[in-house]
Amino acid sequence: MNTSADELEQIARRASDAAPAWAAISPSVRAAALVAAAEALEEAGPRLVAIGMDETGLSQARLTGELKRTAVQLRLFAEVVLDGAYLDVRIDEADSDFALGVRPDLRRYQIPVGPVVNFAASNFPFAFSVAGGDTASALAAGNPVIVKAHSGHPSLSAHTAKVVAGALEAAGAPLGTLQLISGQEAGVAMLKHPLVAAGSFTGSIRVGRMLADIAAARSAPIPFYGELGSVNPAFVTQAALVEQAAAIADGFVTSVSASAGQFCTKPGFLFVPVGHGMGERLAAKAVAVDEHRMLNPGIATGFRDRRSAILNTPGIIILAEGMLRFDDFGQGWATPTIVSISVADLLAQRETLTDEAFGPLSIVVEYNPDDDLAAVADQLFEGSLTGTVHMGSGEDTARLRSLIQWLTQHAGRVLFGGWPTGVAVSPAMQHGGPWPSTTNDTSTSVGTAAIARFLRPVSYQGAPQELLPEPLRDDNPWAVPQHRNLAGDSLTWGDFARPVDVHP
Amino acid sequence: MNTSADELEQIARRASDAAPAWAAISPSVRAAALVAAAEALEEAGPRLVAIGMDETGLSQARLTGELKRTAVQLRLFAEVVLDGAYLDVRIDEADSDFALGVRPDLRRYQIPVGPVVNFAASNFPFAFSVAGGDTASALAAGNPVIVKAHSGHPSLSAHTAKVVAGALEAAGAPLGTLQLISGQEAGVAMLKHPLVAAGSFTGSIRVGRMLADIAAARSAPIPFYGELGSVNPAFVTQAALVEQAAAIADGFVTSVSASAGQFCTKPGFLFVPVGHGMGERLAAKAVAVDEHRMLNPGIATGFRDRRSAILNTPGIIILAEGMLRFDDFGQGWATPTIVSISVADLLAQRETLTDEAFGPLSIVVEYNPDDDLAAVADQLFEGSLTGTVHMGSGEDTARLRSLIQWLTQHAGRVLFGGWPTGVAVSPAMQHGGPWPSTTNDTSTSVGTAAIARFLRPVSYQGAPQELLPEPLRDDNPWAVPQHRNLAGDSLTWGDFARPVDVHP
Repeated sequence: MNTSADELEQIARRASDAAPAWAAISPSVRAAALVAAAEALEEAGPRLVAIGMDETGLSQARLTGELKRTAVQLRLFAEVVLDGAYLDVRIDEADSDFALGVRPDLRRYQIPVGPVVNFAASNFPFAFSVAGGDTASALAAGNPVIVKAHSGHPSLSAHTAKVVAGALEAAGAPLGTLQLISGQEAGVAMLKHPLVAAGSFTGSIRVGRMLADIAAARSAPIPFYGELGSVNPAFVTQAALVEQAAAIADGFVTSVSASAGQFCTKPGFLFVPVGHGMGERLAAKAVAVDEHRMLNPGIATGFRDRRSAILNTPGIIILAEGMLRFDDFGQGWATPTIVSISVADLLAQRETLTDEAFGPLSIVVEYNPDDDLAAVADQLFEGSLTGTVHMGSGEDTARLRSLIQWLTQHAGRVLFGGWPTGVAVSPAMQHGGPWPSTTNDTSTSVGTAAIARFLRPVSYQGAPQELLPEPLRDDNPWAVPQHRNLAGDSLTWGDFARPVDVHP
Repeated sequence: MNTSADELEQIARRASDAAPAWAAISPSVRAAALVAAAEALEEAGPRLVAIGMDETGLSQARLTGELKRTAVQLRLFAEVVLDGAYLDVRIDEADSDFALGVRPDLRRYQIPVGPVVNFAASNFPFAFSVAGGDTASALAAGNPVIVKAHSGHPSLSAHTAKVVAGALEAAGAPLGTLQLISGQEAGVAMLKHPLVAAGSFTGSIRVGRMLADIAAARSAPIPFYGELGSVNPAFVTQAALVEQAAAIADGFVTSVSASAGQFCTKPGFLFVPVGHGMGERLAAKAVAVDEHRMLNPGIATGFRDRRSAILNTPGIIILAEGMLRFDDFGQGWATPTIVSISVADLLAQRETLTDEAFGPLSIVVEYNPDDDLAAVADQLFEGSLTGTVHMGSGEDTARLRSLIQWLTQHAGRVLFGGWPTGVAVSPAMQHGGPWPSTTNDTSTSVGTAAIARFLRPVSYQGAPQELLPEPLRDDNPWAVPQHRNLAGDSLTWGDFARPVDVHP
């Protein structure tokens, strides 16, 4: 089951051998290979979904939707490859009038970093696993990918890797463009391998931190992008409560309980004004949720312990107790647990309560009209992937602006209404916030901007046209966007009179 | 002299307090503040240059030029701020036809990370110190900066900080936008401070690695950008030798000996064909160089040891012995040392010879016509800031292409002719290559692209216009470039027939 040391060596070498060819391949071929992978996934869909249901306990509807998302993601990155803007081509024309003296001809773009090891997630067996977002973005950037399969869905991982690697190679990708390894030790060994140039990960704070430390401690350190734990606080203003208490209560429970709450974007805290009157509706909605299997016995055990600690914390009031039971196979089955607490008690118990509870549990926090929510949040939380505010239509107060400012400083995505568990795969998505929600908040793991993680810049100075890579050439054979900085530009610096600041 | 713990706490807090205001300031005010800093530097120029000459031993011409570069750098970043493209504004229109179902209105841009601690360099008392590139890019991005002064030029650092901080504040920047600290312990303490959000450094591999490890080991890790050691190999083909041996010999010695070779981009190795016949010219040119004071006694002592180890390595042939003497103040004075060695002997002695020698010393490596230079280089070197190739006009061989490919993989900037010690400050410059030339090769520390290091992305989902930050609003009051992704775009995906690949 675990990949042996010999196999790891062969896999690393194969990835390294594949790297130059995959990096140099034309955009149309690389894009077509990504589309071929998407088509192959879709074709194998029903078979893969059945394996996934068995291994993860996730529903057919959920997995079918996730597979579609995974295929669309590959198609979206094909568009990114064809577009070419991600190469960030900058051409400085030679300039004898440059402010600092003669400037040479300089041409800079982004090149692939080299083989990437991607640690797959338990909770997204398609979208954050073998052919998921990290794989798609690394492949699109021109890097071979080695996926460390998650132990929670080994058969699905093997089948997916076969389907996708086969499709890539049939479409012209070199052998070794996508490979699979298994076992925690194997993953660690690969992250340490000198031929590996970057790492990505989706999972717990504990494991993510361990891997980030390993990447940083290498004799040659490499970039490591870990997406870890997040509590995703949501805040409801008095005005929002007046306008739409019922919709908020219903949406909240749905967001907390979908897929047994096993989302990194699950709202872990909902701040509502005291006297909100939502208790009964929250309870009724929660009780109506069918029990859902948890992903694996380890996650279920972790949830059992976390839930129990929360239920036994002073100040906690149970709105919907929910339950967790284990079946004969050791699998956990859960219904949602919703509790409430006052701001004062939460502050007093923050050591116990503010860590993520991975599963269908959330804490409703009752605040007083004069509480400064930004100040309260600042005492409670580190970084999150998301932060949400529900406000009244047209509401705009200093307190609200201060809360939005706090959310901006502590999250990667700030939602105005809605719930964070839907994550659009699009150019403007940001999935990644301050520690501990990620190990590195300067990038995203969802959306097309993710491609930037697996690139590094290089400049060519004074190169003859025929020795330049295609994207940097004047005849621009790949038709990529080129930003030219013209000779003489610096002569117009300091022309600050233009009206760029009409609302100072 | 060393900043005390109490002072550090006040400085960190002042930077943190300044952060929101400096981040929110309009582009025209931020740009004007950078220009004001440039003007103040220029005005104080003669006084600062005199202090710098005394503290560093660098010449008036060199320091005057460096001060100009530093001021121009600030003006260049003012242009970057006004332009606004660095914000990478992406607006996804809400899209009910999106390939994955309804897409919300999403708006993403780059925000400042927060207070940056910048460790100044010894060898660039202006351009990589208090008001240097790292400071300019971090300020331009909207971050307060805390500079850890280099111990080699304390008075210059204090005077520069006073001039620049004063100019910034007079132009509207909040108190604490630029602050100075002193002492290695103080620097380490600041890098560990919870209110510090990123670090930058220019200096030795040993210290840079220590600081990178500290940044990575924080309870909340932060990005750290270290620019460390580099050997900058240069390669001369037979054809280049035939065409311009004399110019290459002269340019090489000039590049090796300028400012006593104390540049991170100094060419440490020059590969030339055996029988090159350049020995006498190299020697004559080197002997003609006046002695130059080294930056400080520590660097001079390090150079003495390194030079001595190289001179005593088997296979080394002395072309120009040069010298190093110490004056009554303990300062070292040097003239250039040029030695040669065969490829075979260099390979045999690589443990001793391939580390950087910081000072006016370089190794001429004589290769045979059948040597594969890419293969040789691969056995000798890790990453460098630069790699240079001198070739004949129109030369284009498989071996040459393979060398260029190797250089691209092992350097941040590849030069075709010329010498790496000139570093243009421009949009297409890349100053940063694979380890150990930097701790993180996905960014640059010279040129306008450096601004990307001190930013992180955030998305707003479904926000009302009046609560959006200026760059994301439809009325775009700051007139920044906005990339809009239109509703319905995904309906045209897969239209792969367009002729993007005319040279496959």
